[in-house]
Parts: sequence; C-alpha cells; structure tokens
Amino acid sequence: MSSFERSSARAADQLRPVRITRAYTAYAEGSVLIEFGNTKVLCTASVEEKVPGHKKGSGEGWVTAEYGMLPRATHTRSDREAARGKQSGRTQEIQRLIGRSLRAVFDLKKLGERTIHLDCDVIQADGGTRTASITGAFVAAQDAVNKLLADGKLKETPILGHVAAISVGIVQGTPLLDLEYIEDVGCDTDMNVVMTGAGHYVEVQGTAEGAAFSRKEMDALLLLAEKGISELVTLQQHSLLN
Amino acid sequence: MSSFERSSARAADQLRPVRITRAYTAYAEGSVLIEFGNTKVLCTASVEEKVPGHKKGSGEGWVTAEYGMLPRATHTRSDREAARGKQSGRTQEIQRLIGRSLRAVFDLKKLGERTIHLDCDVIQADGGTRTASITGAFVAAQDAVNKLLADGKLKETPILGHVAAISVGIVQGTPLLDLEYIEDVGCDTDMNVVMTGAGHYVEVQGTAEGAAFSRKEMDALLLLAEKGISELVTLQQHSLLN
Amino acid sequence: MSSFERSSARAADQLRPVRITRAYTAYAEGSVLIEFGNTKVLCTASVEEKVPGHKKGSGEGWVTAEYGMLPRATHTRSDREAARGKQSGRTQEIQRLIGRSLRAVFDLKKLGERTIHLDCDVIQADGGTRTASITGAFVAAQDAVNKLLADGKLKETPILGHVAAISVGIVQGTPLLDLEYIEDVGCDTDMNVVMTGAGHYVEVQGTAEGAAFSRKEMDALLLLAEKGISELVTLQQHSLLN
Amino acid sequence: MSSFERSSARAADQLRPVRITRAYTAYAEGSVLIEFGNTKVLCTASVEEKVPGHKKGSGEGWVTAEYGMLPRATHTRSDREAARGKQSGRTQEIQRLIGRSLRAVFDLKKLGERTIHLDCDVIQADGGTRTASITGAFVAAQDAVNKLLADGKLKETPILGHVAAISVGIVQGTPLLDLEYIEDVGCDTDMNVVMTGAGHYVEVQGTAEGAAFSRKEMDALLLLAEKGISELVTLQQHSLLN
Amino acid sequence: MSSFERSSARAADQLRPVRITRAYTAYAEGSVLIEFGNTKVLCTASVEEKVPGHKKGSGEGWVTAEYGMLPRATHTRSDREAARGKQSGRTQEIQRLIGRSLRAVFDLKKLGERTIHLDCDVIQADGGTRTASITGAFVAAQDAVNKLLADGKLKETPILGHVAAISVGIVQGTPLLDLEYIEDVGCDTDMNVVMTGAGHYVEVQGTAEGAAFSRKEMDALLLLAEKGISELVTLQQHSLLN
Amino acid sequence: MSSFERSSARAADQLRPVRITRAYTAYAEGSVLIEFGNTKVLCTASVEEKVPGHKKGSGEGWVTAEYGMLPRATHTRSDREAARGKQSGRTQEIQRLIGRSLRAVFDLKKLGERTIHLDCDVIQADGGTRTASITGAFVAAQDAVNKLLADGKLKETPILGHVAAISVGIVQGTPLLDLEYIEDVGCDTDMNVVMTGAGHYVEVQGTAEGAAFSRKEMDALLLLAEKGISELVTLQQHSLLN
Repeated sequence: MSSFERSSARAADQLRPVRITRAYTAYAEGSVLIEFGNTKVLCTASVEEKVPGHKKGSGEGWVTAEYGMLPRATHTRSDREAARGKQSGRTQEIQRLIGRSLRAVFDLKKLGERTIHLDCDVIQADGGTRTASITGAFVAAQDAVNKLLADGKLKETPILGHVAAISVGIVQGTPLLDLEYIEDVGCDTDMNVVMTGAGHYVEVQGTAEGAAFSRKEMDALLLLAEKGISELVTLQQHSLLN
Repeated sequence: MSSFERSSARAADQLRPVRITRAYTAYAEGSVLIEFGNTKVLCTASVEEKVPGHKKGSGEGWVTAEYGMLPRATHTRSDREAARGKQSGRTQEIQRLIGRSLRAVFDLKKLGERTIHLDCDVIQADGGTRTASITGAFVAAQDAVNKLLADGKLKETPILGHVAAISVGIVQGTPLLDLEYIEDVGCDTDMNVVMTGAGHYVEVQGTAEGAAFSRKEMDALLLLAEKGISELVTLQQHSLLN
Repeated sequence: MSSFERSSARAADQLRPVRITRAYTAYAEGSVLIEFGNTKVLCTASVEEKVPGHKKGSGEGWVTAEYGMLPRATHTRSDREAARGKQSGRTQEIQRLIGRSLRAVFDLKKLGERTIHLDCDVIQADGGTRTASITGAFVAAQDAVNKLLADGKLKETPILGHVAAISVGIVQGTPLLDLEYIEDVGCDTDMNVVMTGAGHYVEVQGTAEGAAFSRKEMDALLLLAEKGISELVTLQQHSLLN
Repeated sequence: MSSFERSSARAADQLRPVRITRAYTAYAEGSVLIEFGNTKVLCTASVEEKVPGHKKGSGEGWVTAEYGMLPRATHTRSDREAARGKQSGRTQEIQRLIGRSLRAVFDLKKLGERTIHLDCDVIQADGGTRTASITGAFVAAQDAVNKLLADGKLKETPILGHVAAISVGIVQGTPLLDLEYIEDVGCDTDMNVVMTGAGHYVEVQGTAEGAAFSRKEMDALLLLAEKGISELVTLQQHSLLN
Repeated sequence: MSSFERSSARAADQLRPVRITRAYTAYAEGSVLIEFGNTKVLCTASVEEKVPGHKKGSGEGWVTAEYGMLPRATHTRSDREAARGKQSGRTQEIQRLIGRSLRAVFDLKKLGERTIHLDCDVIQADGGTRTASITGAFVAAQDAVNKLLADGKLKETPILGHVAAISVGIVQGTPLLDLEYIEDVGCDTDMNVVMTGAGHYVEVQGTAEGAAFSRKEMDALLLLAEKGISELVTLQQHSLLN
Repeated sequence: MSSFERSSARAADQLRPVRITRAYTAYAEGSVLIEFGNTKVLCTASVEEKVPGHKKGSGEGWVTAEYGMLPRATHTRSDREAARGKQSGRTQEIQRLIGRSLRAVFDLKKLGERTIHLDCDVIQADGGTRTASITGAFVAAQDAVNKLLADGKLKETPILGHVAAISVGIVQGTPLLDLEYIEDVGCDTDMNVVMTGAGHYVEVQGTAEGAAFSRKEMDALLLLAEKGISELVTLQQHSLLN
C-alpha cells in the first residue's frame, strides 16, 4: 500500500481543523457556522408551529432539511439553482440525507406538531460539505430545541442523542479520513458515514469511483470513520457547553 | 433475536423467484423484463451515436440511466411525474445510483464516443425496484454491447464484468435478504448493495429507518448481500447463454 | 386506385391481431394489456374515492385519463417526459381524447362522487396507440366498475355501453383499416374514429397529412372504421366473459 | 326535430356577421382582425428568415402557429397562461390544429428556408375562436407571402389555395352553423371542420358532448360546414382584393 | 445643448396624441383601449369576489395587475411568454409597478374583501407601454368601481384620486416628454414617473442608460413629467365624462 | 414635522456602521462581505472568459448580477427559491438593478469579451439589502478587475468610477437615511438611490408606500442620499487601500 502526502502534513486518520460557531446569525432559533478546514457551511434551524400534510393531526412533528451552495463557493462558479429553476439531483440527494440523519436522533412524538427546518448553505466548499452539514445541523437543532425548552413549549427534549458525519476514502491505495476536494476528486472509493453519539450507524453510503472495493478496504474505512465521528461528537459537546 | 415469518415460507437468506426475460420489447438494442417475485421492471438499453457535452471530443463514451414508475405500479396510484412536471428526489436518487453502478463495469474509452441509455420502468412494484433495475439493466447493456460487436461497431467489449444488486434489511431483529414491500415498510435497517461479479463493492447504501444499527448487524447484512448477489450473477450468466 | 401491399398479407379492411389480457398487473382495480399487432399498451383503471375541484359537492363522479409512452417504446429513443419536465402537446391531446371518449359512455351521476383514473402507458408502439388505449381502457374501466359493484359500493352500473376506437387512413390511394406505424408515416389522410357499441360516433378526428381529402374518401374511411370498431366491441365482449 | 331560437334571429345555416380587417397592427408582415359576431381574434403573420431544427438544411420552410386568449376575453376572467407558467392542453391542441391547417395549403419547398409564425390572440371570445383563428390566419399568411413576393424574396407563391374553418353542432336536435358560446355550451355534438377553397377536407374534428351522434347527423353537419366554409372563402377573397 | 428632431414635428414637451376608448371589449367590468401615438394597450378591470391569502379575513380588498405583450406587438416578433413557460424579469417588474401605482389611489378597506385584477395587454408597442398601462388601467378601474357602486355592492368609492404615468428622458442632450421607441433606444437617461391627480409622486424610476445624470437634468425631467401627467389626468377626466 | 427615535440613537442623516471585508471567501476573483448594521451581504465577483449570446463577437464584455437571500436571513423563514423552482419578481427586480448599476461604471469595450458575474447573497437581512449589494459588489468587481490587470489580461481598467447605493425614506414625517427593516416596514415613502463617485445619478427608485409624496419631500430625500453615498464611496476607497 503506497502512501499519499496530505496538505498541511495531515495524518491519514486526522480530521481537518473543525470550528463550530454558534449564534452565527441573529434571527434563527439555531444558527451554526461549521468549518471543516476550508469547507464552511452555515446551518440554521427554524422552528415552525405547523407540520406538512402527511403529519397533520398525527400529534407528531417533523424534521426536514434543505441544502444549497452559493454559486461561487467553489473553484469555478456554478449556476445558481434558483435561476435555473430547479435543484440538481445531487442537491436533492444531499438534503434528503441530511433530513434522514437528523430524524434518526429525534423522537417526533415528543417534538409535538411542529417542524424544524434545517437549512444548510455552503459558503465555501473544499470537500465534505454534506458531512459538515449534518454535523453542524445537529448543533443548530439542539439550540432550537433548547430554546423551545426554555420557552416552555417543550417539557422534555425530543433529541435522543448526537449525530455526526464524516467522509472517508481510499486515495492511491491509502484509506484517508475527512477528504478535501482535491482528495475527493482523485479517490477510488468514497464513503460517507453518519453515526450516533452511541457509535451506531445511521447511514453508510460507499461508492466506488474507480475500481470496486474489497470487504477489507470497507472495514478499514469504517474504522477510520468511527474514529472521526467520535471526535466530532466530542467537538459538538464542547461547543454546546459554552 | 426473534424470527420473522416471510411470505411463501421464504428463508431469511433466500431470494424471491427471479425471472429474466430478454428481448421483451422489439426495438431497443437491449430489452429485459426482470422479475424479483412480484416486482417487475422493464430495462431497455438504447445506443445513441453521440455523447453529452462533458464527454464531447474526449474519445470516451457515456452510460446513463433513467428510472420511472408507472402510476399504478403500486398499491395506491401515485401521481405521474410527467404530469406533475418534475421527477421526485427519490426518482433522481435511484437513477443516479443505477447510472453509477453500470458505469462501474464499463471501460468508457473502449465504448468510444457513444452513449448507452438505460431506461428502467417499473411495471409492478413490490420492493427492491432499484436493485432489480440494476440487475436487469446489466443484461440489457450486455445485449446492446453484443449488438455493437456483431455490427462491427466495437472491436472488443467495453464491459469489465458483471454488476448486480440486492437489498437486505433487519426486520424485527432478523436480517433478511431481498425485502418485499411489506418487509421494507416495517424494517429497522435497509441496505442496498451493488457488487461486481468478482465480489467487490460498487455501492453500499445503508439507512437506519428506526434505530441506528451496530457494526455487527452491518456485517450480517453484508454477508447476506454477498450471497444474494452471487446468485444473481449466476442468473444473469444463464440468461445470457440463451 | 392503386393497391398497397400490407405486412403479413393483411387485407385493407382487416384489423391486426388483437389481444386483450385482463389482470395484467396485480394492484389496479382494472389492468389490461391490449395489443394491436406490435402495438402494446398497458391500461389500468384506478378508483379514487374523491373528485377534482370542479365536481366537489355535485354528487357526480369523474373519469379521466393520462397517457405516456416508455422512452424506448419506439424505433429510436424519445426523451422521457418526466425528465424534460413537461408533457408534449401530442401527449396532452391524446389523453384528453381518451378521457372524453370514456366519459361518453359513463353516467357520472350513477358513478357517485369518485374518480376513475385511466392510465394508458405504451410499452411498444407500432401505430394506433391512441385507439388501442381507448379500446383497452374501456375493458379496464369495466373491470373497475365490476369491482365496485361486487364490493357493494355501486348499486347499478354507471356504464352506458361499450366504446372502442380505430384508426383508418388512405395510403397511396387505398383506404386502410388499423394503420401500422409504417403506413401511418406514409399516409395522405389519417382518421381516428371512436364509436359506441350501438354504432354511434363519439369522436371523429380526420387529418389530411398530404393532400386534402374528398367527401367520397371520408365516406370510405368511415365505413372501414365502423367495420373495425364493430369487431373490436365483439373482442371486448369476449374478453369480459372470461 | 325541435327547433332552436338563435340570437339576432339567425337562421340555422347562417354565419354570424364576419368582418376581416387587414393591417390591423403596424409591424407584422400580415395582421388581421377577424370577427365572427362577438368573437374577435387578432391573427398576425411574422416572417423569420430561419427554420426550426428539424427543417435545417432541408431547403424547406415551416409554418407554425401559437394561440392565446387574453385573460378577460371571456365572461369570467381566466388565469394568464404566462403567469401560470404553462399553456393548457386546450391551448396546445388548438395551436397544433391551426398550424396543421395552414401547412395543408403551403408548399414548404416553395417557401424556402424561412418560417411563417402565425399568432392568433383572442381579444374577445364568444365561441368559434379556433375556426376564426384559422380563417383569419390564412389572410394574414397571404399578406405575408405577398410581401415576400413584392420584396423579391419569393419568385412564386408557396400558397396552394385557400383554407378556412367553421364550427357546426347539434343543439336541442337542430344542426346549427357557426356556434356562439351559449350554443356551444349546450350542444350535444360539436364539430370543427377545416376545408380548402377547392372544397376538400383538411381537418374534421367531431365530438359528442352529450349523446353519441349518428351517421345521418354527421352528414347533416358536414353539409352545413361545407356551405359555411364556401362563404368564408368568398369573404377571404373579397378582403384580399382591397 | 443640441436639439433633437422628433417625429411628426412634435415639441420636446408635447405628448403624443392620446386616445382613450372605454368599453372596448364587452365582458370586463372595465375595458379601456389606451393609445399613446402608436402604442396601444388594452386595459381590463375584472372584479372577483374574493381576495388572495394574505388579505383573507382582513376586511380589506386587493388591487393587482398583470402585463403582457402580444408576440408581434413589436418590430420583430418576440417569444410568447406562455410558450416559454415563464414571464421575463421585465414583465414582472412592470406588472408590479402597475399594481403598486393603482393601489396608491385605492382605499383597500373601502373596497371590501374583493379583488380588482387589472390586465394590461400590449397590442402594439412604440415606447411607453408601462406608462400607458397605468394611465389606462386607472380608467378601467374607475369603470369597474362605478359598476360596483351602481350595483349597490359598494356604498362609497374606494378611489382616492386619479393616477397617471408618463416617461421622460434625455436624448442627445434634450429632455423629452413621452418617449417613442426610437427615442427610448437612443436615450441617455430614461425616467418613468407616476403621479396622482393632486400632483404628488407615487413612483419615480430614473435610469442612466448611458452616462449618469446630474441633479439639474433630473429637475428638468421631473418638470416635464409633471406637465405631461397633468394633461393625462385631464384626458382621463374627459374620457370618464362620456 | 414630528421626529422619529432611531435605534442606537442614530441621527436621521446617519448611516449605520458599515463594514467592508475583502477576500471573505477564498476562490472568487473578488469576495466582499459588506455589513450595513445587521444587514450582511456576501458579494462575489467571478470572471468568466466568455460572454452571453447578445455580446458574442462584439468585442465587448458583460457585467451581470444575481441576488439571493438565505432562507433564514430574515426574522421568519422564507421559502428557498431553488426549491420553489423560480425566483420571485422581487428577486429579479433587485438583480436587474444591481446589474444595471454596475454596468453604469464599466466601459464594456475595455473589459474585452469576458463576463463579470456578481453574486449578492444575503446572509442576514435588516433592510437595505439591495443598496448594500450594489455598494459591496463594486468593491468585489474592483478586486476582480485588479486581478485581471495583475495577470496581464487587461492593459487598462474598464472601471470608470465608483458606484454606491443607499436607501432613504420618510418615516412618521421624518426623512431618514439608510432605513433598517423596522423603519422600512413603517415608512410612507421609500427611495433607493444609486450614484457614481462623481455625484451623478445612476438610478433613482422612489415609491410611495402610503401617501404620495411631494416634490419638497423628494428633494429632502435626494439630499440625504447624496450625503450617504458620498460617505459610502469614501468607505469603499479606504477598503480598497488595504
């Protein structure tokens, strides 16, 4: 197995510097800027006191997500989805993933008939925008729930535990944690893993970009992801202490 | 671990009866009706002697997929996407998955500057439509490539090996192979696995529908999937012999 | 008047072999595969216990149709309407025709405030897809009504009689019944006729593709259509006996 | 057969007063306001020195039509199609009919690689808007062709003869020529007939709104239509003399 | 300051001939054809006995406008917005301006919970279509209100005063009133001014097309506009006397 | 004239604290975060080495703008335009204004056949987002032009001078500079003014929200705006020195 030189002399199993800034904007019930190195995503949580049609009268709430990328978040400008008149398949895939991941740690009955909208908008993209979105959206959702508790609108928290996400991949034969854009482009296998604070899987999405990957390679990747997510959960916890 | 009673006394690690009918319609270069029990998908492969913009002048070809469901393929009628004016996020997610899976076994350089369109249309849906689509689309693609070889348009095959897919899941604590709709609805964890004929992974997409799942559960599911896909590849091979 | 050689030595006033397969799929209240030679259309009838806005509170029901063509139903692949984001003018024209034709033999008062959706999806197209759709949709609608009667949801049938449709046209000077695609492409005049079992007209749509046509030619075409539809009604009746 | 009292003491086989005003607006190559009683349609013909994709390099031209209705052309305001973001099925059906009807009297080879766009916009609607559109569009097209001849862009006319259209219908058992809105709403059978100046059929579209109609009724309607169209062609000719 | 020769020897501070024709079409509650020279706009006012969502239950009414241009209102044909599937930014900007301008002279409380829809459709365009629309829409709205008063649906008028609009601009250094298309194309500064009958501003929209303009130039333009609007209000008053 | 108490004891003719942060994101040729108090807009300038169709082969360049608002930039969440599938009329109006304003200080010939895309995305909205966008977009455009000059792609600057914008309005009788959201909601008259560094007008858009406004009021507003813009231009200059 050859070895791949990462930027900033990062080790293969090392996260990029992660920064979580709460209350980044003023109006949302939860507002978090999360940075994984040069990747920066603004995650807001908005509470709406009604639910979509399929939940009306159920006594249950709903948690949903939308994802967007500013046109010049990337190296070359991409079209604005609002101007093109539709969201790409990639965008929809990502926002569905974020929504499912957050719902996995919510007891919708305890949330009551209200909706938490999670908006994840990428200010700057350098790989891992979907995993940063999930990790940041959890903190924003926690802030929104804390506000509902403080306001007496909720008696007990509907949040069952932490959820966080990281990407892993095999680049030139080396399994790496938390891929940057340049690593993502050149990788053979790319896997996004979403796990709970308790160390269980919420989502595993592995894709062979080049050659198909072996069971042994998957095992190595899952191990890396587990390490990274455990660190991210600790960072979420520290961030929420302040 | 409790045990779950499957329909038709099916064993937990047993595929539904699979039928692959080639040349199901007359005009497509490849046309396959694939049945996984009551799930029936028509997969056609159409060869077009040009490529999309991002491949023009590259000397490489392209393989892409579209997916659709007839409005009454399901127990209750769903809206026709053409009438609503857009494809759902679910539809786009599935057709992107089918496209990536098939490209994983294609050498696009050897295909030359032409496109193979794979259309997977669900006639009847009883769970597993995306995995049936991938498994059937491979056979349709093989037929289309054989026609290109027979017509002298290709000198050697661009197909690197088989690809097939199966769903696995945990229902009431029991890991099951090839979920029917009723099982899919009630499952805690749902995983779609795409593998090559050589036994390597092309895609792994696991989702906790209820509780998050453990590494041990994932291992059990991957084992089941491996068994199922190995059987599907054999069925593809037999089908292509005739 | 010159004479035109048809495929399979078919006579000018002869229908292609017609096959009507009921219960073709499992879930719809009516599900019919109708074949006019190589043209194959799946017609399903779905009962919905509500009506569109313009019928709400009227005590009357509604019968409506949608039409689609699988992308590779035809000799060369056509774009998927769901992917393009809209139905073509041709598609809308056809589904409006199917809807009007079926409503012509329904007593909407007797149907009660419910909707019958007729979905006509072309699996393979060799000319006459709209006439096959109407002829098959009638059988599917009958099956759905029979189910409503059997379930006690209807006391008496809202169906006033049969309806069926056929195309006729003038090819190289010869009036022909039930045009195949190759005949349709080359014809001077193309007429679609929809009639009731009692031999009255529901729709007549004649179009001069090349030269305008005379009254005498129209009379010849109407005669041919009457013969064809009478045979189709008999085939519908036989099919419904089983 | 009972008898129906028409407005303004009109006879059953009598057209409403028809007025054709050429050069109604200043910029179009042909611009005609046509009035059938209270129905008023502005038909413009615009010449564009290029053709759509399917005619490029063919040496042939194209004739096409678009149809629209001002929101308050009707008794109650209808939605603006541009604001709703799509044309209705009815609109598309009508503009396809107008286009086919006009192409029936054009030799596209003689037109050369240019397009004539016919825009038919209904200023006021009292039944028969599609037949007024066709009848007026012919005059606008003739004016546009005359301008091309006068400018030396065409050596000989590509127009093969007149085309005009009228509606006929059976109201309370009486066959009537040129239905007004109130008659159209209450009619059992509605037929639009498009014929050439030479008395041949270009389009016949008959629809049973209530009961299906007999061959004898159709014959009566076709006779009425023939009379009306012959009068319209005379009016077109007189209008073009000035 | 050089001087610019206007068509028809028009003075720099002179309006084009303005004609206001009421009851131009038969069905709308108000229907006005307004002509500013060769610019012709049909303005209809339609009363609907309900209000949009944001006014429901408020006891207040609503006044809104839509704007359209017939495809061949202009020198060269422009695309039909209904066919393209969306209104241009320019169209939306204009219809929002018309709506705001008319609401400025309406007491929405006195209107009661009903909507007045103003449809401004350009039949022929030679500059100034938005100012003609506002000026004509006022007369149509007045007619619709008069009808509501006559029908006893309103006890007192909700109209607070006149509103009218005109364009002014600087062409080759000369400030001009009421620009024609040819002047508009070549102008350095273009300003649309909307004023009440009492001489107050409702909207001022000035744009430097070429060089930025000075305060002195703006003052000259505002003076011209004031003169023009005062004349237009007189013309509205005369028109409403008949 | 009564007096209105502003937040933070701001004087009537005082700007909110303005902050201009260049190089806010890493990839764009110009990237500016501009803050007018709590209003925060990210303005990026992206250079593309091609021009839209209407400029092809002209030797001239193009400058264009797009505007967006993050869903939770505002007090209550608004729908994401990309998800709704179209940009609102307000959005289009604003981005057209930004584009025109910036083009007013560009010599498009000197820019050469390339496009500068200005993307203005509102992170947080407290009134004045369009004027902050224009003021910030100028700085981003200047940075992008400086880069083109530094890279030798331009020999001389195509920028003719500064452009900046501010809102003014009359609140409870008092003319105020730089309205906050709460002031904007309650104001009688709202005016957005765009001026060059040389003190000439590029755009003036005044709207009577409540009562129409007098010439004297307009004069007071224009004076305020002139003062504010002169201060903004100084701030732009200081920002560009660093």
